[in-house]
Formats: sequence, C-alpha cells, structure tokens
Amino acid sequence: MASLVRSTLMKNRGLWLPGFNAVRAMSAQAGPTPPFSTLSVSHPANAITHVELHRPDKRNAMNRAFWSEMVECFSQIAVDAECRVVVVSGAGKIFTAGIDLMDMASDVLQPGGDDTARTSWNLRRIITKYQETFSVIEKCPKPVVVAVHGACVGGGVDLITACDIRLCTQDAWFQVKEVDIGLAADVGTLQRLPKVIGSRSLVNELALTARKMYSDEAKSCGLVSRVFPDKEAMMAGALELAGEIAARSPVAVQGTKINLIYSRDHSVAEGLDYMATWNMSMLQTQDVMKSAQAAMEKKSPKEVPFSKL
Amino acid sequence: MASLVRSTLMKNRGLWLPGFNAVRAMSAQAGPTPPFSTLSVSHPANAITHVELHRPDKRNAMNRAFWSEMVECFSQIAVDAECRVVVVSGAGKIFTAGIDLMDMASDVLQPGGDDTARTSWNLRRIITKYQETFSVIEKCPKPVVVAVHGACVGGGVDLITACDIRLCTQDAWFQVKEVDIGLAADVGTLQRLPKVIGSRSLVNELALTARKMYSDEAKSCGLVSRVFPDKEAMMAGALELAGEIAARSPVAVQGTKINLIYSRDHSVAEGLDYMATWNMSMLQTQDVMKSAQAAMEKKSPKEVPFSKL
Amino acid sequence: MASLVRSTLMKNRGLWLPGFNAVRAMSAQAGPTPPFSTLSVSHPANAITHVELHRPDKRNAMNRAFWSEMVECFSQIAVDAECRVVVVSGAGKIFTAGIDLMDMASDVLQPGGDDTARTSWNLRRIITKYQETFSVIEKCPKPVVVAVHGACVGGGVDLITACDIRLCTQDAWFQVKEVDIGLAADVGTLQRLPKVIGSRSLVNELALTARKMYSDEAKSCGLVSRVFPDKEAMMAGALELAGEIAARSPVAVQGTKINLIYSRDHSVAEGLDYMATWNMSMLQTQDVMKSAQAAMEKKSPKEVPFSKL
Amino acid sequence: MASLVRSTLMKNRGLWLPGFNAVRAMSAQAGPTPPFSTLSVSHPANAITHVELHRPDKRNAMNRAFWSEMVECFSQIAVDAECRVVVVSGAGKIFTAGIDLMDMASDVLQPGGDDTARTSWNLRRIITKYQETFSVIEKCPKPVVVAVHGACVGGGVDLITACDIRLCTQDAWFQVKEVDIGLAADVGTLQRLPKVIGSRSLVNELALTARKMYSDEAKSCGLVSRVFPDKEAMMAGALELAGEIAARSPVAVQGTKINLIYSRDHSVAEGLDYMATWNMSMLQTQDVMKSAQAAMEKKSPKEVPFSKL
Amino acid sequence: MASLVRSTLMKNRGLWLPGFNAVRAMSAQAGPTPPFSTLSVSHPANAITHVELHRPDKRNAMNRAFWSEMVECFSQIAVDAECRVVVVSGAGKIFTAGIDLMDMASDVLQPGGDDTARTSWNLRRIITKYQETFSVIEKCPKPVVVAVHGACVGGGVDLITACDIRLCTQDAWFQVKEVDIGLAADVGTLQRLPKVIGSRSLVNELALTARKMYSDEAKSCGLVSRVFPDKEAMMAGALELAGEIAARSPVAVQGTKINLIYSRDHSVAEGLDYMATWNMSMLQTQDVMKSAQAAMEKKSPKEVPFSKL
Amino acid sequence: MASLVRSTLMKNRGLWLPGFNAVRAMSAQAGPTPPFSTLSVSHPANAITHVELHRPDKRNAMNRAFWSEMVECFSQIAVDAECRVVVVSGAGKIFTAGIDLMDMASDVLQPGGDDTARTSWNLRRIITKYQETFSVIEKCPKPVVVAVHGACVGGGVDLITACDIRLCTQDAWFQVKEVDIGLAADVGTLQRLPKVIGSRSLVNELALTARKMYSDEAKSCGLVSRVFPDKEAMMAGALELAGEIAARSPVAVQGTKINLIYSRDHSVAEGLDYMATWNMSMLQTQDVMKSAQAAMEKKSPKEVPFSKL
Repeated sequence: MASLVRSTLMKNRGLWLPGFNAVRAMSAQAGPTPPFSTLSVSHPANAITHVELHRPDKRNAMNRAFWSEMVECFSQIAVDAECRVVVVSGAGKIFTAGIDLMDMASDVLQPGGDDTARTSWNLRRIITKYQETFSVIEKCPKPVVVAVHGACVGGGVDLITACDIRLCTQDAWFQVKEVDIGLAADVGTLQRLPKVIGSRSLVNELALTARKMYSDEAKSCGLVSRVFPDKEAMMAGALELAGEIAARSPVAVQGTKINLIYSRDHSVAEGLDYMATWNMSMLQTQDVMKSAQAAMEKKSPKEVPFSKL
Repeated sequence: MASLVRSTLMKNRGLWLPGFNAVRAMSAQAGPTPPFSTLSVSHPANAITHVELHRPDKRNAMNRAFWSEMVECFSQIAVDAECRVVVVSGAGKIFTAGIDLMDMASDVLQPGGDDTARTSWNLRRIITKYQETFSVIEKCPKPVVVAVHGACVGGGVDLITACDIRLCTQDAWFQVKEVDIGLAADVGTLQRLPKVIGSRSLVNELALTARKMYSDEAKSCGLVSRVFPDKEAMMAGALELAGEIAARSPVAVQGTKINLIYSRDHSVAEGLDYMATWNMSMLQTQDVMKSAQAAMEKKSPKEVPFSKL
Repeated sequence: MASLVRSTLMKNRGLWLPGFNAVRAMSAQAGPTPPFSTLSVSHPANAITHVELHRPDKRNAMNRAFWSEMVECFSQIAVDAECRVVVVSGAGKIFTAGIDLMDMASDVLQPGGDDTARTSWNLRRIITKYQETFSVIEKCPKPVVVAVHGACVGGGVDLITACDIRLCTQDAWFQVKEVDIGLAADVGTLQRLPKVIGSRSLVNELALTARKMYSDEAKSCGLVSRVFPDKEAMMAGALELAGEIAARSPVAVQGTKINLIYSRDHSVAEGLDYMATWNMSMLQTQDVMKSAQAAMEKKSPKEVPFSKL
Repeated sequence: MASLVRSTLMKNRGLWLPGFNAVRAMSAQAGPTPPFSTLSVSHPANAITHVELHRPDKRNAMNRAFWSEMVECFSQIAVDAECRVVVVSGAGKIFTAGIDLMDMASDVLQPGGDDTARTSWNLRRIITKYQETFSVIEKCPKPVVVAVHGACVGGGVDLITACDIRLCTQDAWFQVKEVDIGLAADVGTLQRLPKVIGSRSLVNELALTARKMYSDEAKSCGLVSRVFPDKEAMMAGALELAGEIAARSPVAVQGTKINLIYSRDHSVAEGLDYMATWNMSMLQTQDVMKSAQAAMEKKSPKEVPFSKL
Repeated sequence: MASLVRSTLMKNRGLWLPGFNAVRAMSAQAGPTPPFSTLSVSHPANAITHVELHRPDKRNAMNRAFWSEMVECFSQIAVDAECRVVVVSGAGKIFTAGIDLMDMASDVLQPGGDDTARTSWNLRRIITKYQETFSVIEKCPKPVVVAVHGACVGGGVDLITACDIRLCTQDAWFQVKEVDIGLAADVGTLQRLPKVIGSRSLVNELALTARKMYSDEAKSCGLVSRVFPDKEAMMAGALELAGEIAARSPVAVQGTKINLIYSRDHSVAEGLDYMATWNMSMLQTQDVMKSAQAAMEKKSPKEVPFSKL
Repeated sequence: MASLVRSTLMKNRGLWLPGFNAVRAMSAQAGPTPPFSTLSVSHPANAITHVELHRPDKRNAMNRAFWSEMVECFSQIAVDAECRVVVVSGAGKIFTAGIDLMDMASDVLQPGGDDTARTSWNLRRIITKYQETFSVIEKCPKPVVVAVHGACVGGGVDLITACDIRLCTQDAWFQVKEVDIGLAADVGTLQRLPKVIGSRSLVNELALTARKMYSDEAKSCGLVSRVFPDKEAMMAGALELAGEIAARSPVAVQGTKINLIYSRDHSVAEGLDYMATWNMSMLQTQDVMKSAQAAMEKKSPKEVPFSKL
C-alpha cells in the first residue's frame, strides 16, 4: 500500500523521491537531539526538517521540558533558510498520550499565589505560555505536515490542529480528553478544531464527551486528509508530500501558508486586501520566471534551483 | 439497533445507564408541562432535562405561545443547578412543521404602524424577539442535544442549528423552507447553518431552492453526527450521549460549550486569549483533582460526585 | 442519467421544465456575445442568464479582455431586473485552463515603476483590479450556479469559489495551480476556498502542493454539491436548479444570498442583527402573500407571477 | 445665568419652552415612583421622561434595588411610544456616591460557591447582571441626556458614560473610584470612557489613580458638552435640550442614536452598510415630507405632529 | 492675518511658496470645468489639484450631477500621477448648503417599486451610491485638505469628515442637518464624525439636535485643525499646507494616508501587521535615500525631485 | 512651580512623597545600567522602576542596541513582582532624536536578499522586530508613565504613544518625522496616535507634514495630560503620579491597564464580556477587603500592605 501511494504520487509528478533511506532514517531515530530532551530533529531529505516527539517510553507524554523545547525548536526552524517544510511525528508505539500530568501537576494544580486573584494571575501566565507551544507551529511560515499513528490524546489534538496538513495510520485514534479530567481544553483544541473540520455537531460531541474518534471518521470528517495502512507507509507518504512542497518556490509556499492562516481569521474582503498588499512585493520574485521557464521546458519544479528564503 | 448503539457506547465507557424506563418516559409524555402549553419538560435521568415540543396534533408547529415559552423554559434551565445537559425532541409523528403561519400571520403580516418606517420598526422588534427564541439555546451554558425524527421544516432548522449536537432517525428530512413563502430565513438558519456544516455549495443550494435533505445527506455533510434506525433507538442514543456529558465535571463541560461558541465567532488568537482568561479561575476547581483521582482508581467519571454549578 | 436527474427533481417539485431546447441552446453557443470577446451571454429560459466562458480554442484561458469583461458583464446582470439567477459554464473541452500567462505576462511581470516601491504600487493596483473580476460575482445579488467540466485550473478555482453553487461532471478536476508558478494565489482562492469546504487539511494540501483533485473528492469534501455523468446532463441539471431558484420570490432569493455572504464574514450575533434590519422592510413584500396563497392552493412557486426586482 | 442659557438657546431655535413649571417639577420630586424605591420617574414636558436617582439621604448610592430597577425602568421606556427622550439626574446634594458597598457587599464579596471555579461562575453572573444595568441605557433607542451636579463617583461614571449627552454644573466632579477599593472598574467605565473622550492619557490617569476631575477639565476633555452655573440652570438647559430632541421626528432621532452606537463599534465601511440597510425602510416615513413642508413654511419642527414610534 | 499665518509657516519650513497668483487663481475660478457642471478643477501649484464646489448661485447645493461628478473627479485624481495632494473648497458665499432637495426629491422620496420591499431595494441602491460619493475621497490615496468658509450644512458635513485635514474661516459654521428633515444622516456623518472628533457627547448633541457649531467650537473639539480670519487667508494657508505635503515623497505620503485609514478601522495589532506588510516593499524606494541625502545637505524636501507615483 | 504641582497633588491625596532625594536620583543617573548600553534602570522609590533612555551625547538616538534592550528591559519588568509602575524619561538635553539612522542604515536600507521578494521578506522581519520594541510597553501589565522634555522626534513618538500616561515640559515638542525621510511611520505612530488623541484632522496634519507640535498644543489635543515648567518639576510630578499608582492594589491597577487596552481594540460589548470573565477571579482578592477597611479607617491606600503580584 505504501508503494501504491507512492506510485500514485509519482504518476502525476515525476520522479523526485527522497528514497527509502530517508524514510528508514525517519523511523529509527536513536534518541532526542541535544539540546532537546523530548524532541529528535533530523533532515531526512533536502529542505525537509523532521521533528519527532521522542519520549517513547513515556508514550511521548508532554512534560515540562517539551513545552519549552517546542518553542525553541520551531523558533529556530522559522528562521532556518535551509528548511522549507516540516514533518512532525511521534517515536515509539503511539503519537502522544498528551500532557504528562505527573510532571506538570505542580504547575497547573499548585501555581501559588497569596490569594485567588494572584493564583489566577499565575495560572493565566502558565496557560498563555503553554498556548504558545503550539502557536509557534502556526507562526512558523514553513508548512508543517503531521503524521499520527496510534493514539493522539488531549494535548496531542491541540498540537495537530495547529499543523497545516494531517495524515494518519489506519490504527490511529484521536481523543479530546480534557473534559474527562475536569478541564475545558485550553491550549488550542477548542479554538482550532472547529476551524479544521466541517461538522460542528461532531466537534461538540468530541469535546463534550471525550469519546475516541478512529481514523475512518477522522478521514470522512476531514480532520486528516489521508489515511495510510501503517506507520512506514505513512512516513513515506509524509515525506513524499513534504518533498512536493519543498520542491516549490519558498516565496510562493510560505506566502500561501501565511495568507491561508490570515484568511481563516478574517473576512474575505480583509483577506483579499491583505493578499494584494502581500503580493505587491512577492510577485517581484525571480521564482515566477524560473517556474514559468521550467514549465515551458516541461521540467518538474524539483529541478528548479530556487534561492533560499 | 438501539441496543447495538447502547452496547457500543458501554464498551468504551462503563456501566452508567439511564435505563429503559427513562427512555420509555421520554417517548410517552402525556402532555405539555404547565405553565407551558407547547413544551413538555421532564427529567428522565439524573442531571438531564428533556424538553419536548408538544403540539403533536399540530405537527409541533411553532405558534405564538411557543416563541415565548422557549425563552422562559431555557432561561430557567440556564440557572437550574440540577441540570447539566438538555435533550430536545418532538412529540408525535414529526419533529416540527416549522412556524404556525395561521397563528403568527397577524404578527408578521400585519404588524401595524402609521407609515412604512413605523411598520418596519415594529417588524424589527418582532424579528429580534423571535431570534431570541433560539439564541437562548446558545446562551444556555448547558449542552443541548437535539433528536430529530420525521420532518424538520423551516423554523425547525433554525432551532436545531442553535443546538450543540444533532442526531436524527433514518426517516428524518430537513428543509430550509422560507424561500418558498417569499422570505429570507431570519431567525437563525442563514447565520448558523453555514457554520454548522462544511459545504457552502450545499448550504446555498438548500437555502435557495428549499429542497429537502434526507438523513444520509445530513450525516455525510455533518449536519447530524449520528443517524438511528428509529425514534426509540434515537431517544436511547440521545439519553446515552446526554448521560456521558452529565457524568463529567459541569465546570469543564459548560466552560467547553461557552468557549466553543466564543471561538466560532472570533479569530484563533482572540479565542486563545479568552480561554486563558476563562481558565485562570476555572482551573481552580476541585473537579480536576476529583477527576484525576477517579482516573487513577480506574473509576468512571460517572462515579464522581461533582458539586453543582 | 440526465433524465434521471431531471425526473428526480421533478418528483419533488412539479412540472416546470426549461425544456431540451434550452439545454441544447446552452451547449451550442456560436461565439462570444458582442461587445464581449471572451464571454457568451444568453437567456436559455425565463429569468435565467447563461454566461459562458468562450475562448474554446484557448481552453478558455483568462486573457486581459476576460478580466474586464467579467466586471462589465456582472455589473449589468446585477441591475438587470429580468434576471433572477445566473449559470456559468465553459465552452469547448474544458472549463478553463486558468490565467492566460502569455497575454498577461506584461501586466504581471513587467508592471513598470521607477523603483521597487513604485513597481509594488502598480502591482497592487493590478492585483486589486483582478480580484474585482471575481468579487463581482459575489456582489451580484442574483445567485450564481457554476457548472464545471474537464479541467478547472488556477484562476478557474478563484472563479468558482466566488460562485454560490458548484456542480461538476464526472471527468472534472480542480487544481490550485499558483504555487507551481512561484505564486501565492492572490485573486480569491486562498480567501474563499477554506470557507467553501470543511477540511482545512485538504485545503492546505491542495494549495501547497498544486495537486489535482478529481470530482469524487470534490463531492465528498463539499466543493461541489452534485456530480453529473457528462456535460449535457450537468447543463440540464444546472438549468433545472436555476429554474427552481428563478421560480421563487426574487426578494426572498436575493435577500438570502446577501445575508448568507454577510454571515460568512461576521459573528452569528452580528449576522442576526443585520438580518433583522434587512427583513424589517423586506418582509413587507407582496411576495409573502402570493407565495402563501399559492401554497394553500397547492400551486408551485413557478406559477406565481412575482414582480421584478 | 440659567436665563442666559435659555435665551441663547431660544435665539437659534424659536419659542418652544417647557416652561418654568416643568423645571421646578424636575427639581422637586417628592420621592421614588412606585414600584421603584430608588428612582423617581416623571414627565416634565411632552414626550420627555425624567428619571431621577432618588435616595438623597444615601447620596443616591447604588443599592441592590437600584441595579434591578434601572433595568425595569429603561425596559419600559424603550417601548413607551409616548417618550422620545430621557433626562437622568440625581436628587439631593450630589448626583451619586456610586455603589452602596454596605448593601452590596454580600453579593460581591461573598458570592458563594463550593470551590473557586464555582465562586467565579457566580461572580461572573453577578457582574454581567450589573453591566446590564447601564447597558439598558444604550439599548434604549431614545436619547438619554444626563445632568450631573456635585459628585459623580465610581458607578456614577459607569452610568453617565452609557448616556448619550452629558451636562454638568460648575461644582460637579467625577471620580473613577474603583482602583481605590482594589477593583478594576467592571460595569462599563473602562469600556466606554475611552470612547467618550479624546485623550487616552487622561483616561488612563483617571482610571489608574482615582483622582478627581472637576467640571472645567470635564468640559475641555469633552466628557460633558456643557457646564452650567448651578443645578437649576442645568435642569433648565437639560430640558431645553431634551425639548429640541423631542420636537424632531422620532424615526430620525432614534435611527440616529442606533446608528451612532453601531458606528462606534464598527469600521466605517461596516457602519455605512448597516446605515444603508437601516434607511432603506426608514426613509419611507411620512416624517420627511412633514419636516420638509414645515421647513418650507418656516415652521419649527416643534409644530409638526409626528406619529408615535 | 493671512500674511501672519504665512510667515509663521515660513519660519519653520523654509521658503517654498506657491505665491499669490496661485491663491488668487484659487479664489477666482470662472466656472465649472467641463465635463463637470458642479465642480471646478484646477492646478494652482505643482502637484496640487484644487477641486472647487462650483454652483455658487445655488449655494453649492448638492444636486444629482454633483453626486456623480465627485466620483468621476476623484477616480481620475486617484490615478493621476501628477497630483500629490488635493484641496477642496467652495465657490461663492458659503461652502455648501448641503443636499439640493428640490433636485434630489424624486430619487429619495419617490424611488419607485411595486411594493415596500422593492421600494426599499431601490432606496438601498441609491443610498449606497450616494455614500460612494464621499467614500471616493477616502479611497483616493492622495491626502485631501478641505477648506470651509461660511456654512457647511448636512451633506457638507458628510463630505468634510471624509477628508483628511479640515480648515475653516472664523465665520464658518457646521450643522448636521438631517434630523431636521426627518432623516438619520446616511451618507457618512454618523459613521465618520465620531471618529474625527474626541467628544462623543458633542457628536451626539450635534446629530440629535441639528444645532449649529461655530468655528471656535469646531477648533476646540478638533473638527478643524486651524481657523483663519477670512477665506483669502484660509486659501493661502490651505495651499501652504498642501505645498508641504506635495513636497514630500509621494510613496511616504500616500502610504501614510492609507495606513492611517486602515488603523482607524482595525485594532493596533492588526494595524501593525498591515503596516509591516505594506512597508516591506515601500521601504525599498529611492525616496528614502534622496530624502536622507537632502536632509544631510540641509536642503528642504521641496528641492528633492521624487519620481511620480 | 514644581512645588506648586506637588502641593496641589498633596492637598487631595495625603502625604506620601517619594521625596527630593528620589527626584534628584532620577535626574542624575551616572550612566547605562549593565547589561544595557542605552538604558539606565533604577528604583527611585518603593515599587517604582525608572527607565531612562541614556545616550545623552547622541541625543538618545535609537541605535541597534536600543531596539533589543527595550525588549529585554520590559520583559524583565513585566514579571518583576517588586515593580508596580514604570517611569520612562530621557537623559541629557532632549528626550530623543528618534532613530539613529547612521547606526541603523544597513539594517533598513540594505537588508539583503537575492531578489525583491526576499529583500521584502527580510524587511518585514526587521520591521516586525522593531514594532515589538514598543509593543512590549503595552504588553507589560504595569502602567508606564512617560516624561518628555525637549525634543521627541520620530521613533520617540512611536515610543510615547505606547505608554499609558504622557507628561511633558513646557519646552517639549513632538514631531512625526518619518514622512520627511521618505517613510510611512511603521513602528506604531500611525496605529496608536489616532487612538491617543481626539482630533483626526490634527493627527493627519502631523503625520503628513512632519510639522512640530509644541507642548501647549500637545496638552490641548490630549496627547499629554499635564505640562510642567521644567524637567525637575516634571520628574517630581511623574514620581508623584507613579507613587499614586504604586500605592494602589496591583491586582486592580494591572487589571485596569489590561482591560483598558483590550477595550481600545474591541467593541463595548466585547470589552464588557472580557471584563466580566477577567474579574470573576480578580474580585476574589484580599485587596478589596484591605482597601475597604483602609477607607473606613480613613487611611490612605499607601498605608495598605498589598501582596505582590
């Protein structure tokens, strides 16, 4: 099936393949990449950065270190001219079990403060900081493809809804878990999930009952755009997809991401105005001429050497 | 099939069932509950309020009394600490035939006024009042599950799009009827339907042609999140679902509803800011500790005695 | 199949058919309608205007003339009291190949200007002008049904997302092409596509990779609301659908379109307020009484002679 | 001075004077008007309603009763077709000392609740209710003129910023008091004051230091539009001003208020769109013709008998 | 006094004077400039366009022709690279008496339409068209200085609030007249006036009572930024001011206008984002280097030859 | 005069004076505070932080170091529980000459980039970074009082409009300088100035002509809320004012700042909703009781020991 996917992609697009070594590399990270203790960062193919949640023995639960490291990691990626697209996945048996309550409890449950107002003040600062952990994904101008296998629970849903393209394996399931532990989800799910899928009734059901959603429902409701038979096939597919994006003009790609997010939060008229103001300079890129020429010469975008951005 | 649904639900969630008596009670209301003449209000299970449209001989058509009674009914529910979730359904053969034109005609067609401006003024007041009839559902912090069987016409669509979760039977159909009687739908459908389902082309087609949409299309487009074989099965399913919600922390559940609705109408950044400000106090609930402890002891949320809200 | 569609429609709606001649007429325009050189405008049935992209030998590529003619054409339609609904389609083998780069290159690639700022200034004016080409469709109060066969590429996607109802043939495919030529799509796709379909992951994938989407995926994601076996069937279906809309009160229909678009760009509360202010006058139409009477007499809306608007 | 004011007004406007009796009546209310215990409501002249804060022995401090009675009072006024304009003032030595902490303390300081979240929930409901006390002034379509003498402290500032026109006496002073008692002002001052006066530096200074502002500064910063030498003169002036408003078409006057408030909270483009939609019916009033005819006959608007609204 | 003003200006700014001839020219237009019948357009100095309302015998009342001609006139100016700043004033004894009711009555009072809804539809189209007459001033990227002498009534206030800088003579007065003829002002005053001056109480008083405001109050409330002793002095001052603006980089000046208007209608954060996106190209102008060099050489901006825009 | 100001303040407020030593200390900083090279940070009185622009020999021109140091400095202050209010002023002869073009030129004029699009991309990143330099003042929850003497040019206006309260000396002048060097002001002035003062005509004049505004006009238009005879008096006044703020509940004060800024950018209804959600926890502070008790015991807020925040 993995090969089926690949060949389908190839049929329409030509022959630029990251290759099996790349995929194998992605699936077998040895451990976190210093200075990170929860993330493994690698470069499986040209212009592609792979960020792997890497606490497999803890089911990639999100501990204190994770919340900071994501911000640091994506801040670097945002200004890394070598990177044009990011793939996020999880090491080990599942994508992530969500927040690591044991490690985080003191932050969230005993924030300190001389009275309720001061405790609230501290909690607000903490929540805001945690929200930033996923908002950095959105602020990063490079597209982020997330590949989910096994469970994606609680904070995992906050994370993936901040990504641009979602893929999953057949055995994946998703759970907006927060209501089960007495919380309204506060680091992104309630804000982004309804803008990511089309059925509001389903969003509400998931968030209010904490029931699991399996991959087929995730596909039919549009949470993920593709389902793969297993993790290996998914990683190959993710890399293919990332390769397609990486091959195109970074001026076009990153402008597209920025304007898609802008449009989500504005009226059509506002979005058009912003777009015109954006493109009045971005159209003056050599990439248009390079792309046009490649198209006329029947070359793939992958053969065009775009300048870094 | 009803039992299938029920057993599926039970498998994942444990053993808290409202029971058959409850369902039977829901399906056999004797008549309206005073002081209401169009609504029957009951409590089929702990913390669950059932509101039934109850003019079965008039196909639950929405008459003058209905428009006021809904406001009164949901205003009470909004502050009823015993209630954590609401189920809405229709008595008799269909959910509702929509507005009762015979009863309402004098309001809408002869509003009075010495000149066009004054007539318009009066009409605006009436429309605004009628809009409130369904907006109360949205303003009520308790989640509202609506269960539709048979026809759901005109004002019925306005009503259900203001609810949080939509279920229906196999034989249900939906019709945005207003354009057939020379009207642009003005009490909620045009505002909420496009935010409830994902296909704008479909929304436009429904609203501009007044064609019927049947249950399978309603499911595939996301208007409803589940379809049941018949009304009895649906009511059992609705009660199950309501039970799941009622079993969870009301602080978490109602905060979730309020923030989901806030997010619909704001940008992601605005929604995150509001959420942080909301949760800076709401995280200071005992429910988190109670829920966490129950989870560690492998108990169902249903066994946790949360304080009222 | 065309007849199947038609008979299905007829079953629910009665017997008002534009007839085969009309359909045949739509499919066999002789050439552009002066003063237009890229559009063929006709009136296949009462109150229906058909606008056909008509440069079949150039695969309906959008040249300079096209961008102006669309504005002129829809400005006329907007105030044409004879017209109640518009059908847009493409002549020849495909719907449209998108922008005609050869014809447009000088505008976009060599806009002139003594320095970068002045070049940007000129480009912004050009982009804004081109955006208007499709925004006129949205500003036109008459509903616009677009029928796509074969390819719909680049600017074609900008065009169809500004229409109200989208239909396509089985062999149709859609491609957000811009990123392939080094551009972020700037005349509407990035703003409207995410508000037209429910899966954000899919939107992002399409816009970031420029991959083709075929008719079945277009249907399941909600981009189109119906797929037809071939162009003839589609044109018949489009005419049927247009006939349904044209038969209804223009006050109701056009008020519905205007408020649906308003609602897209505003919160529910804002939308309700605007709706009430809109309808305080629009409810004072004779069309309500005419429609109500027709309904009581079991007549079809098509038999009611509404005044022009 | 009072007569000076009056004669100045008369010079420009003709001869319609409520008369001294009216003014005297306004200044000498015997006591609250049942069923109110804190408000005295009277009708000093045709179409003018006078609402007087009436707990003079308690310096018109806002007690529990007040917060409810304002809502009831203005809800009645909003639909009272006899009333075209409202004057608000305070009985006794000062306008108001603000919130009556003694009476309110239990509400605000001991709201009850089993944990912090539930206490917060209850507090939010209380704050929202209190906000409504002043928002009703804004929602009332009839213009509200407020006349302040002596002190206007804390809640008094919340109240007057929700009114449309502010007048004061020479000896008046204003104090945003909340920060002095450990509170951020939460029933309107922080929201409305910055939109009422033009100097943000001053707004911040007042709100952050709780310093008093005297009448001359209130005039120069635009908080009040006129200062009068004493209360009698001010009440005469207020009545004059109210008379001017009451004499004009209520369709024009109330439409003006509604659109001015709408414009405050929207962009210019949004405001223009709403205005056009508002006036498409409101222009169809006989009042235009009546007014135009009066103007041609050199009559004052006060001689034109407009229909009620 | 005129010379006083002039010398004051000169002291701070150097010696670039349009000269007396220019001023004289401005004050003595012979008649309307074809094809206009209500406007006289001239070029009193380099890069300055003077638009004069020119129906002096009708007190520059705004007739049908005027409403169209303004749109045509400012559409031309918007794209006229020779023009960098506009001065608007009125010929004859006063600035303008506002709408010419005699000429317009048929439009506004008898718009036609088979029923109230259709009449409303037509009225809305008319209002929207008239709003455009003043919105073109705002959409024109060149700054517009308006110079008011004598009366500025009704539509005149709509006009001047759409301009960027307002000057007046000592004998000028302003009147929001609409409420006197039974109308809520619907072509801009209610939307723009509150955003133009700082005292909301004053805005409301003016709009609700239609009282006159004289030049001193207009100055102290900020409606105008300068008052001149007579028309001649004002025209000289206006020309001075226009000369200052015209002398500066058009990229800087027009970008400033566009962003000031954008900021009015958006939050600070939105405004900053738009500004950054705007200036990422506009900073790449030669004008910065030219200006910097001129500054270092102690030259006036007026000596720098900027390219056209 | 300085003593006059001081005694006036004392009359209304009691006797808590930072004292002359503090003022003297403020006026005689020895040099920048490491690690800063452009800022001198001190603590002239309890809970007050003084940030002085400190490049007196360069007229406090804003060089590269400054843009970073401001962010670092205010990020520290934002979380410094010892600090309750900030005073900003300038060392040496003037407040600031604005941007240090010599030092910054390479950033702004030669940002690098392989083509126009990439240069624009880099410029946008730079502008956004510079905007942050002043936005940190706004994001810091502690109120910021700015005291301006002598010149405040270009970037200085961006800076002060981001502060909460503005004071100046008699000899101060302000200049929106950017248009003089070919730029639209892009780090805050165009966004904040119109929301800081009430006269839009004046804002436009200042921004479009770059003319100087002197202290009296700055006071009358509301840019500053007080003018002092000289720098010493101003610093004493600033310290007094800061002392007033520092003496009050930090929960109240900082909640007030946050909500005032929120209100600026939202409708009144949005602002009220946010306020209620904010205060549902913040009202649960001990500070209310402490403040109330102090008030009853006729103590000054300054005698109340509030907990840190």
